[in-house]
Amino acid sequence: MEQEKIEKVKSLIRNIPDFPSKGILFRDLTTAFKDAEGLAIITESLVEKYAGLGITKVVGVEARGFIGGSILARELGAGFVPLRKPGKLPADTVSKSYAKEYGTDTIEIHRDAIDENDIVVIHDDLLATGGTMLAAYELVKSMNPKKVYIDFIVELSGLEGRKLFPADVPVNAMIVY
Amino acid sequence: MEQEKIEKVKSLIRNIPDFPSKGILFRDLTTAFKDAEGLAIITESLVEKYAGLGITKVVGVEARGFIGGSILARELGAGFVPLRKPGKLPADTVSKSYAKEYGTDTIEIHRDAIDENDIVVIHDDLLATGGTMLAAYELVKSMNPKKVYIDFIVELSGLEGRKLFPADVPVNAMIVY
Repeated sequence: MEQEKIEKVKSLIRNIPDFPSKGILFRDLTTAFKDAEGLAIITESLVEKYAGLGITKVVGVEARGFIGGSILARELGAGFVPLRKPGKLPADTVSKSYAKEYGTDTIEIHRDAIDENDIVVIHDDLLATGGTMLAAYELVKSMNPKKVYIDFIVELSGLEGRKLFPADVPVNAMIVY
Repeated sequence: MEQEKIEKVKSLIRNIPDFPSKGILFRDLTTAFKDAEGLAIITESLVEKYAGLGITKVVGVEARGFIGGSILARELGAGFVPLRKPGKLPADTVSKSYAKEYGTDTIEIHRDAIDENDIVVIHDDLLATGGTMLAAYELVKSMNPKKVYIDFIVELSGLEGRKLFPADVPVNAMIVY
């Protein structure tokens, strides 16, 4: 993708100091999503990365990962699968708990959402420490799809989240800070 | 839209008795979203309803409304705006509390997300009693857009949720039970 387009989206991202807690500079993508051109460029970048790879399912991480994830699924002619917080999915699920800064968190996916014929992109808006996405990856991987790609719109590279993932798993980000 | 396509999506929806509580038949759309053809038909229905109306923003209600909402925004070349649970949006918000069966709930939107030049669709996956969408409508309306449309994929008509909305506000649903 042309650098000019990436810069356009960067210019639309709102930087918010001390959110959600002191010392964190929050990269607010809502100002890029609400801009028609911003959303168009983000979509173009997603499609460019995954067109022609035979993707059958895009998994979006609740809640912000549903935005780019569902758009990507539709653009590729794939299905969309939500990965949710506990108790939200009504049918049989598999779940995974993971450590957070304070306590633990759990994510869930429907047991019948992915199978061994699927080629999967797991999408979230932003890679920070990577704990949620690692749990998401392990959950999807446990369902034995043919291949898994991991995708973010923004990566905060200083936190080295991508080091958590096996070397043979592609981890892509449109914008790296 | 052809009845055959609507029936196809209905056949993909999973019916789950007693979720989230006893006596409720939950219409699980995840089985339609994960199906590439199901997602394609849902998208076609959304576009058919709103193409050519000058829509500038699609507002999605957290979390399931982000799926169809973001796809619709992209298809129309509009922007996408998330309407979220309290504390999730990092910048200045306007919020609205509303009564639920037990206690109250609150939803929030960024104050700069909508302005008086916007033509808005508010989208959620399912209309039941309509309390959340009424709060969403009042919140968006308070930002003085030119026009507001309300959209659902599924309407549970027996609960008469659509009666909550002013007669001049279009309330659309693809599938009515």
